[in-house]
Amino acid sequence: MSGITVHGEKKLVLAAGRAHPELAQEIAKELGTELLPIDMYDFANGEIYVRSAESVRGTDVFVLQAHPAPLNNWLMEQLIMVDSLKRASAKRITVVSPFYPYARQDKKGRGREPISARLVADLYKTAGAHRIMSVDLHTSQIQGFFDGPVDHLMAIPLLADYIRTRVGGDNVTVVSPDTGRVRVAEQWAERLGGAPLAFVHKSRDLTVPNQAMSKTVVGQVQGRTCVLIDDMIDTGGTISGAVQVLKNAGAKDVIIAATHGVFSGTAAKRLSESGAREVVVTNTLPITAEKRFPQLTVLSIAPLIARAIREVFEDGSVTSLFDGQA
Amino acid sequence: MSGITVHGEKKLVLAAGRAHPELAQEIAKELGTELLPIDMYDFANGEIYVRSAESVRGTDVFVLQAHPAPLNNWLMEQLIMVDSLKRASAKRITVVSPFYPYARQDKKGRGREPISARLVADLYKTAGAHRIMSVDLHTSQIQGFFDGPVDHLMAIPLLADYIRTRVGGDNVTVVSPDTGRVRVAEQWAERLGGAPLAFVHKSRDLTVPNQAMSKTVVGQVQGRTCVLIDDMIDTGGTISGAVQVLKNAGAKDVIIAATHGVFSGTAAKRLSESGAREVVVTNTLPITAEKRFPQLTVLSIAPLIARAIREVFEDGSVTSLFDGQA
Amino acid sequence: MSGITVHGEKKLVLAAGRAHPELAQEIAKELGTELLPIDMYDFANGEIYVRSAESVRGTDVFVLQAHPAPLNNWLMEQLIMVDSLKRASAKRITVVSPFYPYARQDKKGRGREPISARLVADLYKTAGAHRIMSVDLHTSQIQGFFDGPVDHLMAIPLLADYIRTRVGGDNVTVVSPDTGRVRVAEQWAERLGGAPLAFVHKSRDLTVPNQAMSKTVVGQVQGRTCVLIDDMIDTGGTISGAVQVLKNAGAKDVIIAATHGVFSGTAAKRLSESGAREVVVTNTLPITAEKRFPQLTVLSIAPLIARAIREVFEDGSVTSLFDGQA
Amino acid sequence: MSGITVHGEKKLVLAAGRAHPELAQEIAKELGTELLPIDMYDFANGEIYVRSAESVRGTDVFVLQAHPAPLNNWLMEQLIMVDSLKRASAKRITVVSPFYPYARQDKKGRGREPISARLVADLYKTAGAHRIMSVDLHTSQIQGFFDGPVDHLMAIPLLADYIRTRVGGDNVTVVSPDTGRVRVAEQWAERLGGAPLAFVHKSRDLTVPNQAMSKTVVGQVQGRTCVLIDDMIDTGGTISGAVQVLKNAGAKDVIIAATHGVFSGTAAKRLSESGAREVVVTNTLPITAEKRFPQLTVLSIAPLIARAIREVFEDGSVTSLFDGQA
Amino acid sequence: MSGITVHGEKKLVLAAGRAHPELAQEIAKELGTELLPIDMYDFANGEIYVRSAESVRGTDVFVLQAHPAPLNNWLMEQLIMVDSLKRASAKRITVVSPFYPYARQDKKGRGREPISARLVADLYKTAGAHRIMSVDLHTSQIQGFFDGPVDHLMAIPLLADYIRTRVGGDNVTVVSPDTGRVRVAEQWAERLGGAPLAFVHKSRDLTVPNQAMSKTVVGQVQGRTCVLIDDMIDTGGTISGAVQVLKNAGAKDVIIAATHGVFSGTAAKRLSESGAREVVVTNTLPITAEKRFPQLTVLSIAPLIARAIREVFEDGSVTSLFDGQA
Amino acid sequence: MSGITVHGEKKLVLAAGRAHPELAQEIAKELGTELLPIDMYDFANGEIYVRSAESVRGTDVFVLQAHPAPLNNWLMEQLIMVDSLKRASAKRITVVSPFYPYARQDKKGRGREPISARLVADLYKTAGAHRIMSVDLHTSQIQGFFDGPVDHLMAIPLLADYIRTRVGGDNVTVVSPDTGRVRVAEQWAERLGGAPLAFVHKSRDLTVPNQAMSKTVVGQVQGRTCVLIDDMIDTGGTISGAVQVLKNAGAKDVIIAATHGVFSGTAAKRLSESGAREVVVTNTLPITAEKRFPQLTVLSIAPLIARAIREVFEDGSVTSLFDGQA
Repeated sequence: MSGITVHGEKKLVLAAGRAHPELAQEIAKELGTELLPIDMYDFANGEIYVRSAESVRGTDVFVLQAHPAPLNNWLMEQLIMVDSLKRASAKRITVVSPFYPYARQDKKGRGREPISARLVADLYKTAGAHRIMSVDLHTSQIQGFFDGPVDHLMAIPLLADYIRTRVGGDNVTVVSPDTGRVRVAEQWAERLGGAPLAFVHKSRDLTVPNQAMSKTVVGQVQGRTCVLIDDMIDTGGTISGAVQVLKNAGAKDVIIAATHGVFSGTAAKRLSESGAREVVVTNTLPITAEKRFPQLTVLSIAPLIARAIREVFEDGSVTSLFDGQA
Repeated sequence: MSGITVHGEKKLVLAAGRAHPELAQEIAKELGTELLPIDMYDFANGEIYVRSAESVRGTDVFVLQAHPAPLNNWLMEQLIMVDSLKRASAKRITVVSPFYPYARQDKKGRGREPISARLVADLYKTAGAHRIMSVDLHTSQIQGFFDGPVDHLMAIPLLADYIRTRVGGDNVTVVSPDTGRVRVAEQWAERLGGAPLAFVHKSRDLTVPNQAMSKTVVGQVQGRTCVLIDDMIDTGGTISGAVQVLKNAGAKDVIIAATHGVFSGTAAKRLSESGAREVVVTNTLPITAEKRFPQLTVLSIAPLIARAIREVFEDGSVTSLFDGQA
Repeated sequence: MSGITVHGEKKLVLAAGRAHPELAQEIAKELGTELLPIDMYDFANGEIYVRSAESVRGTDVFVLQAHPAPLNNWLMEQLIMVDSLKRASAKRITVVSPFYPYARQDKKGRGREPISARLVADLYKTAGAHRIMSVDLHTSQIQGFFDGPVDHLMAIPLLADYIRTRVGGDNVTVVSPDTGRVRVAEQWAERLGGAPLAFVHKSRDLTVPNQAMSKTVVGQVQGRTCVLIDDMIDTGGTISGAVQVLKNAGAKDVIIAATHGVFSGTAAKRLSESGAREVVVTNTLPITAEKRFPQLTVLSIAPLIARAIREVFEDGSVTSLFDGQA
Repeated sequence: MSGITVHGEKKLVLAAGRAHPELAQEIAKELGTELLPIDMYDFANGEIYVRSAESVRGTDVFVLQAHPAPLNNWLMEQLIMVDSLKRASAKRITVVSPFYPYARQDKKGRGREPISARLVADLYKTAGAHRIMSVDLHTSQIQGFFDGPVDHLMAIPLLADYIRTRVGGDNVTVVSPDTGRVRVAEQWAERLGGAPLAFVHKSRDLTVPNQAMSKTVVGQVQGRTCVLIDDMIDTGGTISGAVQVLKNAGAKDVIIAATHGVFSGTAAKRLSESGAREVVVTNTLPITAEKRFPQLTVLSIAPLIARAIREVFEDGSVTSLFDGQA
Repeated sequence: MSGITVHGEKKLVLAAGRAHPELAQEIAKELGTELLPIDMYDFANGEIYVRSAESVRGTDVFVLQAHPAPLNNWLMEQLIMVDSLKRASAKRITVVSPFYPYARQDKKGRGREPISARLVADLYKTAGAHRIMSVDLHTSQIQGFFDGPVDHLMAIPLLADYIRTRVGGDNVTVVSPDTGRVRVAEQWAERLGGAPLAFVHKSRDLTVPNQAMSKTVVGQVQGRTCVLIDDMIDTGGTISGAVQVLKNAGAKDVIIAATHGVFSGTAAKRLSESGAREVVVTNTLPITAEKRFPQLTVLSIAPLIARAIREVFEDGSVTSLFDGQA
Repeated sequence: MSGITVHGEKKLVLAAGRAHPELAQEIAKELGTELLPIDMYDFANGEIYVRSAESVRGTDVFVLQAHPAPLNNWLMEQLIMVDSLKRASAKRITVVSPFYPYARQDKKGRGREPISARLVADLYKTAGAHRIMSVDLHTSQIQGFFDGPVDHLMAIPLLADYIRTRVGGDNVTVVSPDTGRVRVAEQWAERLGGAPLAFVHKSRDLTVPNQAMSKTVVGQVQGRTCVLIDDMIDTGGTISGAVQVLKNAGAKDVIIAATHGVFSGTAAKRLSESGAREVVVTNTLPITAEKRFPQLTVLSIAPLIARAIREVFEDGSVTSLFDGQA
């Protein structure tokens, strides 16, 4: 028989964009490896240059990128990284985007709107990604936007375990800041031992972004410790307004918990002055110094992502890691 | 110059599968045309045969199919119709599926589940569909599962206009039967003049289909007329349980409103005996005689679909038809 | 160098739909493994739910499904299984469909017909299948409908070996029941040591399915044992008519041999009363009790499929198994 | 409203490769137009250059090419023409290949063979073709190799009408030269008023191309005029051998009819000396002077193709032209 | 016959991103229409929102975007616009990007580099673009990166016509600033009546962007007016260095001409102090106040783009506009 | 757990078309393996038949083909080989085309031209190729025409090392035969220790292929040894004319160096009589006896290709082989 036969091997490589170097380092350390060395810089007009300093032929690459502002820049950087790795003969490419870009634009709320979250999935595919890993997607349906495996990690167990240590024997109510998160609040309630639910009923002017007007509470909050939950906190307007509503409705105390701390504009100031006892987020996005405030607690998402990467690489079960949710 | 030049024309054709002939006829009548004559029958082993009796070259075809049980059969029939029209040189093919098949399997609720709603979108695309038209998708994100235009029609205005005539000066509360429909309940509440919201808080055993255990109400229902809303009623178990919970919580009266009357198994009996004053659905699915019961009201979706088809064909604005929601 | 390197492995997994559990068990036993445990059930409206109970990451999965009536249901089940396995990170997915669905609709016999056999190939591809394995396709050209490897297994050797034990020193003529199978009859004739050929010349009304009118024999059958062959027996009308024609033409005896025993409607009765000495098929489709009759012999296709699966998994030669025909 | 609106037009353009200029001119004349003027030549190393001398923006182009030897050259020329027209903004491109290249390699007869006929369909698609038009495909299943409309024209009516004028009141038998064309012979028999069928039973050495060994006749030919039919005549070996077998079996006379006159090598001499009274083909391929011989009759396929092109352009029914067969 | 037939129309729509409103207005004015009104804004975290205020069903949309810094932002905006128009049923979408993003990264200069210019073409395709229009691509091969029509407009005639008015009876030499533009310099030379050629021979450190070290002149420049040409001027470093080299080599005068005035960082100052008599560019990119300097002349590209858009819409010949070059 | 697990292996296979058997044998010998045995022949009408005599399931196949005249034939042969290997379950297929077909048609030089080099990349992809390997592409941008990894090998080091041994202490000038190769000449100059550059300035009649009219030299060649470089020599007209121009301009001596020796028509005679001291090419194309002449030196490209194949197979770095250029 003609041909040359050798034994097969597979190799995990972790590559990271420039948006959140601390998280990248932390995940690499958890995995027990170094980050792939990559030359990356901007040309004078903002075009991004990317080139791996090592061969990646035949490897199983995980391309981590966080997506704080300027989000479009980091997304293009990640796409260019994927393109370069594809053309350099990487065997499999998994995009790791803890905070999925444009997750909120996941449907046509009105005619002629884009579905940018689907577009992002298609851009990843086009660049050469075979798989996606993300944390707490704005809606779970985004998994279906990608034509391939999506590992959807859940930060709720991590956050809830911490919250439990903070609310002790309190009478807890889990509160959704609007009508769209009640289902998620229900998952939280189960995690916190069957706590009751409530939600804030607001109306939002669709033609003005990032603004909302919170109004009334549906559910029992009088004299209770409210855990106000959300997937992300952007300007903090909605959630701070909800704190006020809860306080007005007689809540004893409010703790805010969210996976993604976007903290745009004056969010830090707003949250700090909102009256909430504590604000808990993870570091899926970089929490820079100017975004920090006394009541803020940041939990690291790195161990969760590192474990998931290892299981994916070794063909283990990611599902088993997360109580059957991922 | 070489070549032969003629004026352009375009032609609308309405083709329908065998699942719901009444709806097809009604839409054709609204449009002022005949249905495309098609030879359709089953081979002895269940394979479906389809062939248009007229040329469809260069036409703009709308392929209507309803999806009651046996749903997989009707879906395959629709796919085969699309294939035959594509190969017969139809210029544009729009799938019209008022009740989108597998809409409930729109995410991986647990690891290793399929995302069948995305699969269905891909099957339509593969067969040759350029566009999709549907009514009240289980979640709006399903629009993003298709790589092309989706006309998402809304039955809420139709249903709400009718409900308003039935509740007069009543003190109305809009109720979601579970935590996942509170956002939709909010849209209903706006339609009904700013009615308050409530929801039933239940837990469902994920390993047993079509069963659920309803528990308590969150929100004010005491002495009020409750409009209990949902996108579809399948076995009627969840919604009937919710009626009971509302009654137990002191509701004066309950009216159920849903777009899709699936009415599987003993749903008719269950709903009839649930204690609801009235159950209102549309005819996106055929409501056969054995599915009818005294309290049932069926509104026709045909005028809405016919108007949307005409606007799509004539490049008019579908959005304008539905208050900016489609 | 950055990165983590480990040795490669590969794992064969056999997953089966619900259409033909006996065949699945038999193949698993031949392979010396268990079937993949999968939760599968129907929702009340006929939608199918599928979820593997074990991780399939990185595996080489063979998705077996038979396609008796209700054929469209079993096809959708198989597509949903493939979708779920793709999204669960299976490395390679091979669809094993012993009886290829819609194989008879493999061309436009008349204008505006679908080519459903091509559509089925595209649906498999879209769902996520990389390869197809099937037995005795209605026409070999169907291999070309799939954009990827197709392992086309042949049951003729299995059937012919058995037939040889039944016709001993008889004067055998191989007979095609119509003009379209004469080439296949020729392959049979070679297998049976150079037997002469004949065919029945009939005309079929294209507008009525499963009906045919057999007429005359072309070729020598007087006083001979006729082996009447076909790829599938559906209603049995064509083949039973052919038996009669052969008897009328002076045939001593008739044995029917076909790969796929569809046996729709009253096929069993028809075949039993046809005058044929014996009817031989394989179990590519389930032969339920009501489809059985005294003259029927069913040969198991499981050893052939199991050997092919193993060769595909181990990168052996499937061609060598089948005399250069696969 | 913003925008500029004008009336729509559509324009038919006929472009032709260099393989068969006579046929191109004849079709253009039938259509009443000129051929698109195109600069076409070969570079010294055989690379082909193509450029239309007129704008083709927005046109409906039919790209005619015949495929005699050197067939691969003419196929590449056609692909490059399609690419240039696509990039020049032609609106719709229909490949017109009267003799479909590689039609005989339409399945894997043995393991590891290519399916070149499918490959050709994919190459057309990749270059930019939206549709295919061809005449008498080697097997009808090739229609299913293309993912789009295929207009499959039939030359049998043309040939049979002519044959009828030549066989008058003769006792005609339609003969297939091998076991694979009996179905087509049946279609001929219907065209010739229900003539009886026969076929020649041969075995072919698969490892040597274009050679075959004809053997015996199955069916009645004694004292009859045999119409020996095939889709193409390549070297003429098979068909000439069949003439001899028929004569030996007592046939009174033999007329050969085939759609495609490939006439490779010494085919003309062989056919001329075969003993056939007449050989009838169409001009789907150029019949150059050295391929002609006294008994040869060539019918023009141009009117059929011209009518089909016009119907396709005008969205008429091609099916109606050909008795429901196309 | 069933169906509804109406006359066809087509409608041109011009949509523009926010990067260069002046150019958009100028092109709209040339075309004699208004820009499509679109709601566009940024969310607090930088995500872009886009929604057309008018229906675009069935229209032929041209999506104009310029690509100055922050380039990645404007590219994403354009992609999201295309996605929204595709989903809103626009019939044909042409991306108009006068300065093609990432054009310089058009090959792997070294192993493991991306080919970002190809990636951009694929992103446009994925979002839904059918066609691309651009001006003076960095290399003409970029046309081949897109799988569809590319209208490649040329600014050289515009620039050369102006330059001719400035150099009168001078002895002109056309100079390429490096070895990669000599072919383009040759095209300029032909435009300027057969002027002689020269180039500056430099070596560039590949690991530092936007920097270069110019060295010597090859060709006759002594006592001549040098027209120093390039496709774009980014930091101005290369071109300013070339002016110095030319002056040192005895050039009487230097005029710089380039299509794209990127003018990053201190380019304006550098160019102003370079010693060039005049710097001529077009407005494919916005030339803001701080980028202007006394020697700068900006020619408008709007008439050229407007004429090309109109020809594309009306299926006229764009080639004829530009001397056979587009 | 269900399933069967075994260790992974991978196997390199080298398959070669019939265009250049010497090169194939040489590469196989360098790799230390035999060529894959394949049955290949032409049918009488020029259709090509291909079938591997050994199983290739799961292998990493490199499909080598050279592309001399008749180039279209060899290209189709290679495409059919790829198709057959894909359908035979090869795991990865790399097309090795040392001389990339149609590389010169890499852009639309004028409106309505094809971009045949992109078409070729798409044809490879469609047939089933995952990767491409080639030597000295006409322009590097062709790498971007393929959607996947392209290993672009460079023959300049090989050629330059040889040239250095021939020019000793000569005063060398590197000369580009036209304005389009000056950049490549610069790379040569670096290889030859910083030699000065020159180019010949000609104008070519675009409407006549393979002809050109060379005119004048820009740069210093008086009394120097000119190394006249190009990527390919086709008819030799351009390059021979350039020799004459250099001689007329006072060059002491001229050596021609090119990667691809196409040598069409009377190229050998022309080159032999051109006045060049030596002509150096590689054997990427077969240099048959009638193409040889006294001044010709042919260097073997086989070691370079063999090393690259081995590195690709073993996931080594191809870049490291070639000074960071591949």
